[in-house]
Amino acid sequence: MTLGVDDLERSLAFYREGLGLPSQGIVGQEFESGAVAFFELRGGVRLALFPRRSIARDADVPLGPPSATEMSIAHNVSSTDEVDALLARAERAGARIVKPAGRTFWGGYAGYFADPDGHLWEIAVNPDIPIDA
Amino acid sequence: MTLGVDDLERSLAFYREGLGLPSQGIVGQEFESGAVAFFELRGGVRLALFPRRSIARDADVPLGPPSATEMSIAHNVSSTDEVDALLARAERAGARIVKPAGRTFWGGYAGYFADPDGHLWEIAVNPDIPIDA
Repeated sequence: MTLGVDDLERSLAFYREGLGLPSQGIVGQEFESGAVAFFELRGGVRLALFPRRSIARDADVPLGPPSATEMSIAHNVSSTDEVDALLARAERAGARIVKPAGRTFWGGYAGYFADPDGHLWEIAVNPDIPIDA
Repeated sequence: MTLGVDDLERSLAFYREGLGLPSQGIVGQEFESGAVAFFELRGGVRLALFPRRSIARDADVPLGPPSATEMSIAHNVSSTDEVDALLARAERAGARIVKPAGRTFWGGYAGYFADPDGHLWEIAVNPDIPIDA
Protein backbone atom coordinates (compact mmCIF):
# COMPACT_ATOMS: atom_id res chain seq x y z
CA MET A 1 0.00 0.00 0.00
CA THR A 2 1.39 3.34 -1.05
CA LEU A 3 0.45 6.63 0.53
CA GLY A 4 0.87 9.84 -1.43
CA VAL A 5 2.79 12.47 0.50
CA ASP A 6 3.80 16.07 -0.05
CA ASP A 7 7.11 15.97 1.82
CA LEU A 8 8.82 12.60 1.90
CA GLU A 9 11.32 13.50 4.64
CA ARG A 10 8.58 14.85 6.90
CA SER A 11 6.48 11.74 6.42
CA LEU A 12 9.44 9.40 6.94
CA ALA A 13 10.22 11.18 10.22
CA PHE A 14 6.61 10.90 11.34
CA TYR A 15 6.37 7.16 10.69
CA ARG A 16 9.92 6.14 11.64
CA GLU A 17 10.93 8.43 14.49
CA GLY A 18 7.43 9.41 15.57
CA LEU A 19 5.59 6.09 15.41
CA GLY A 20 8.65 3.86 15.62
CA LEU A 21 8.10 1.86 12.45
CA PRO A 22 11.37 0.44 11.10
CA SER A 23 12.50 1.71 7.72
CA GLN A 24 15.73 1.86 5.78
CA GLY A 25 14.81 5.42 4.89
CA ILE A 26 14.48 7.02 1.51
CA VAL A 27 15.63 4.81 -1.36
CA GLY A 28 15.36 5.05 -5.14
CA GLN A 29 16.74 8.56 -5.33
CA GLU A 30 18.95 7.48 -8.20
CA PHE A 31 15.84 7.39 -10.39
CA GLU A 32 13.83 10.41 -11.47
CA SER A 33 10.64 10.45 -9.37
CA GLY A 34 11.86 7.23 -7.76
CA ALA A 35 12.41 8.37 -4.17
CA VAL A 36 10.30 6.27 -1.81
CA ALA A 37 10.38 4.98 1.78
CA PHE A 38 9.20 1.50 2.79
CA PHE A 39 7.97 0.03 6.07
CA GLU A 40 7.18 -3.60 6.77
CA LEU A 41 3.86 -4.01 8.56
CA ARG A 42 2.15 -7.10 9.94
CA GLY A 43 1.18 -9.90 7.60
CA GLY A 44 3.85 -9.15 5.02
CA VAL A 45 2.21 -5.87 4.07
CA ARG A 46 4.59 -3.23 2.84
CA LEU A 47 3.69 0.41 3.43
CA ALA A 48 5.30 2.83 1.01
CA LEU A 49 5.49 6.60 1.24
CA PHE A 50 5.73 8.09 -2.23
CA PRO A 51 5.32 11.71 -3.26
CA ARG A 52 1.90 12.48 -4.71
CA ARG A 53 3.66 13.92 -7.77
CA SER A 54 5.51 10.64 -8.22
CA ILE A 55 2.29 8.62 -8.03
CA ALA A 56 0.81 10.89 -10.69
CA ARG A 57 3.84 10.41 -12.88
CA ASP A 58 4.18 6.69 -12.29
CA ALA A 59 0.51 5.92 -12.93
CA ASP A 60 0.00 8.52 -15.68
CA VAL A 61 -2.80 10.30 -13.85
CA PRO A 62 -3.23 14.00 -13.02
CA LEU A 63 -2.02 15.18 -9.62
CA GLY A 64 -5.06 15.48 -7.36
CA PRO A 65 -5.62 17.49 -4.18
CA PRO A 66 -5.25 16.04 -0.69
CA SER A 67 -8.53 14.36 0.22
CA ALA A 68 -8.92 12.56 3.51
CA THR A 69 -12.04 10.59 2.61
CA GLU A 70 -10.38 8.59 -0.17
CA MET A 71 -9.33 5.88 2.25
CA SER A 72 -8.46 5.00 5.80
CA ILE A 73 -6.21 2.41 7.34
CA ALA A 74 -7.35 0.43 10.35
CA HIS A 75 -4.77 -0.76 12.84
CA ASN A 76 -6.20 -3.21 15.32
CA VAL A 77 -4.70 -3.62 18.75
CA SER A 78 -5.72 -5.79 21.65
CA SER A 79 -6.77 -3.38 24.40
CA THR A 80 -8.31 0.00 24.95
CA ASP A 81 -5.11 1.05 26.71
CA GLU A 82 -3.17 0.32 23.54
CA VAL A 83 -5.60 2.42 21.52
CA ASP A 84 -5.12 5.33 23.90
CA ALA A 85 -1.33 4.93 23.97
CA LEU A 86 -0.97 4.74 20.21
CA LEU A 87 -3.17 7.77 19.62
CA ALA A 88 -1.17 9.70 22.22
CA ARG A 89 2.07 8.67 20.55
CA ALA A 90 0.76 9.74 17.14
CA GLU A 91 -0.27 13.10 18.54
CA ARG A 92 3.17 13.64 20.08
CA ALA A 93 4.64 12.76 16.68
CA GLY A 94 2.62 15.52 15.07
CA ALA A 95 -0.57 13.75 14.01
CA ARG A 96 -3.91 15.44 14.37
CA ILE A 97 -6.42 13.53 16.50
CA VAL A 98 -9.51 13.92 14.36
CA LYS A 99 -11.67 11.66 16.50
CA PRO A 100 -10.73 10.89 20.10
CA ALA A 101 -11.04 7.27 21.12
CA GLY A 102 -14.41 6.07 22.30
CA ARG A 103 -16.88 3.24 22.08
CA THR A 104 -18.05 2.51 18.53
CA PHE A 105 -21.46 1.50 17.24
CA TRP A 106 -19.98 -1.86 16.18
CA GLY A 107 -19.02 -2.82 19.69
CA GLY A 108 -15.38 -1.80 19.68
CA TYR A 109 -13.27 1.09 20.91
CA ALA A 110 -11.54 3.30 18.38
CA GLY A 111 -10.21 6.70 17.47
CA TYR A 112 -8.73 8.29 14.37
CA PHE A 113 -5.63 10.28 13.72
CA ALA A 114 -4.61 12.05 10.53
CA ASP A 115 -0.97 11.78 9.46
CA PRO A 116 0.95 14.84 8.20
CA ASP A 117 -0.75 14.46 4.79
CA GLY A 118 -4.21 13.97 6.24
CA HIS A 119 -4.29 10.20 5.71
CA LEU A 120 -6.64 8.64 8.23
CA TRP A 121 -5.59 5.87 10.61
CA GLU A 122 -8.22 4.25 12.76
CA ILE A 123 -6.72 2.67 15.88
CA ALA A 124 -9.18 0.14 17.20
CA VAL A 125 -9.97 -2.75 19.42
CA ASN A 126 -12.34 -4.91 17.47
CA PRO A 127 -13.76 -7.83 19.43
CA ASP A 128 -14.39 -9.68 16.14
CA ILE A 129 -10.82 -9.59 14.85
CA PRO A 130 -8.07 -11.64 16.49
CA ILE A 131 -4.70 -9.90 16.77
CA ASP A 132 -1.72 -11.88 15.53
CA ALA A 133 0.89 -9.17 16.01
CA MET B 1 -7.58 -0.92 4.54
CA THR B 2 -10.72 0.97 3.68
CA LEU B 3 -11.43 2.53 0.29
CA GLY B 4 -13.90 5.39 0.05
CA VAL B 5 -16.52 4.80 -2.64
CA ASP B 6 -19.40 6.76 -4.10
CA ASP B 7 -21.66 3.80 -4.85
CA LEU B 8 -21.22 0.80 -2.59
CA GLU B 9 -23.21 -1.61 -4.78
CA ARG B 10 -21.27 -0.63 -7.88
CA SER B 11 -17.95 -1.11 -6.11
CA LEU B 12 -19.00 -4.42 -4.56
CA ALA B 13 -19.96 -5.68 -8.02
CA PHE B 14 -16.63 -4.55 -9.46
CA TYR B 15 -14.53 -6.30 -6.81
CA ARG B 16 -16.70 -9.38 -6.24
CA GLU B 17 -18.20 -10.22 -9.62
CA GLY B 18 -15.66 -8.37 -11.74
CA LEU B 19 -12.40 -9.29 -10.05
CA GLY B 20 -13.64 -12.41 -8.31
CA LEU B 21 -12.73 -11.47 -4.75
CA PRO B 22 -14.89 -13.31 -2.21
CA SER B 23 -17.18 -11.17 -0.07
CA GLN B 24 -20.29 -11.69 2.00
CA GLY B 25 -21.63 -8.53 0.44
CA ILE B 26 -22.90 -5.41 2.11
CA VAL B 27 -23.20 -5.69 5.87
CA GLY B 28 -23.87 -3.19 8.65
CA GLN B 29 -26.94 -1.70 7.02
CA GLU B 30 -28.72 -1.87 10.35
CA PHE B 31 -26.54 1.04 11.50
CA GLU B 32 -26.76 4.59 10.18
CA SER B 33 -23.76 5.11 7.87
CA GLY B 34 -22.71 1.56 8.75
CA ALA B 35 -23.06 -0.15 5.36
CA VAL B 36 -19.74 -1.65 4.32
CA ALA B 37 -18.40 -4.58 2.27
CA PHE B 38 -15.35 -6.63 3.26
CA PHE B 39 -12.89 -8.76 1.30
CA GLU B 40 -10.14 -10.95 2.71
CA LEU B 41 -6.84 -10.43 0.89
CA ARG B 42 -3.49 -12.18 1.27
CA GLY B 43 -1.66 -11.96 4.56
CA GLY B 44 -4.77 -11.46 6.67
CA VAL B 45 -5.39 -8.03 5.19
CA ARG B 46 -9.00 -7.00 5.08
CA LEU B 47 -10.13 -4.67 2.31
CA ALA B 48 -13.24 -2.66 3.11
CA LEU B 49 -15.38 -0.64 0.77
CA PHE B 50 -17.07 2.17 2.67
CA PRO B 51 -18.90 5.18 1.28
CA ARG B 52 -16.81 8.34 1.30
CA ARG B 53 -19.64 10.06 3.20
CA SER B 54 -19.46 7.33 5.84
CA ILE B 55 -15.70 7.74 6.22
CA ALA B 56 -16.25 11.48 6.72
CA ARG B 57 -18.90 10.83 9.33
CA ASP B 58 -17.03 8.04 11.10
CA ALA B 59 -13.74 9.96 11.33
CA ASP B 60 -15.27 13.41 11.85
CA VAL B 61 -13.60 14.92 8.82
CA PRO B 62 -15.08 16.89 5.91
CA LEU B 63 -16.05 14.97 2.79
CA GLY B 64 -13.28 15.47 0.22
CA PRO B 65 -13.27 15.12 -3.55
CA PRO B 66 -12.10 12.00 -5.37
CA SER B 67 -8.34 12.25 -5.76
CA ALA B 68 -6.38 9.44 -7.37
CA THR B 69 -2.95 10.48 -6.11
CA GLU B 70 -3.80 10.01 -2.43
CA MET B 71 -2.70 6.38 -2.56
CA SER B 72 -2.22 3.29 -4.64
CA ILE B 73 -2.36 -0.39 -3.89
CA ALA B 74 0.24 -2.73 -5.33
CA HIS B 75 -0.74 -6.29 -6.08
CA ASN B 76 2.25 -8.45 -6.87
CA VAL B 77 1.93 -11.52 -9.04
CA SER B 78 4.52 -13.97 -10.25
CA SER B 79 4.61 -13.56 -14.04
CA THR B 80 4.14 -10.98 -16.75
CA ASP B 81 1.30 -13.12 -18.11
CA GLU B 82 -0.50 -12.77 -14.80
CA VAL B 83 -0.05 -9.00 -14.92
CA ASP B 84 -1.57 -8.90 -18.40
CA ALA B 85 -4.41 -11.24 -17.48
CA LEU B 86 -5.36 -9.34 -14.34
CA LEU B 87 -5.31 -5.98 -16.08
CA ALA B 88 -7.48 -7.42 -18.86
CA ARG B 89 -9.91 -8.82 -16.30
CA ALA B 90 -10.08 -5.48 -14.50
CA GLU B 91 -10.79 -3.71 -17.77
CA ARG B 92 -13.59 -6.15 -18.61
CA ALA B 93 -14.99 -5.49 -15.14
CA GLY B 94 -15.15 -1.78 -15.89
CA ALA B 95 -11.80 -0.50 -14.65
CA ARG B 96 -9.91 2.10 -16.59
CA ILE B 97 -6.40 1.08 -17.63
CA VAL B 98 -4.51 4.25 -16.81
CA LYS B 99 -1.09 2.80 -17.60
CA PRO B 100 -0.75 -0.28 -19.77
CA ALA B 101 1.68 -2.90 -18.54
CA GLY B 102 5.32 -2.50 -19.43
CA ARG B 103 8.83 -2.73 -18.08
CA THR B 104 9.47 -0.45 -15.12
CA PHE B 105 12.55 1.55 -14.17
CA TRP B 106 12.97 -0.65 -11.07
CA GLY B 107 13.39 -3.82 -13.08
CA GLY B 108 9.86 -5.16 -12.94
CA TYR B 109 6.82 -5.28 -15.18
CA ALA B 110 3.70 -3.42 -14.15
CA GLY B 111 0.58 -1.57 -15.16
CA TYR B 112 -2.08 0.41 -13.36
CA PHE B 113 -5.83 0.32 -13.41
CA ALA B 114 -8.25 2.70 -11.73
CA ASP B 115 -11.28 1.19 -10.01
CA PRO B 116 -14.77 2.73 -10.43
CA ASP B 117 -13.85 5.41 -7.86
CA GLY B 118 -10.47 6.15 -9.39
CA HIS B 119 -8.46 4.22 -6.78
CA LEU B 120 -5.21 3.08 -8.32
CA TRP B 121 -4.08 -0.53 -8.37
CA GLU B 122 -0.63 -1.36 -9.64
CA ILE B 123 -0.39 -4.94 -10.86
CA ALA B 124 3.24 -5.90 -10.90
CA VAL B 125 5.91 -8.52 -11.12
CA ASN B 126 8.62 -7.39 -8.77
CA PRO B 127 11.76 -9.52 -8.90
CA ASP B 128 12.63 -8.38 -5.36
CA ILE B 129 9.41 -9.49 -3.70
CA PRO B 130 8.62 -13.19 -3.23
CA ILE B 131 5.00 -14.13 -3.81
CA ASP B 132 3.42 -16.22 -1.08
CA ALA B 133 -0.10 -16.32 -2.47
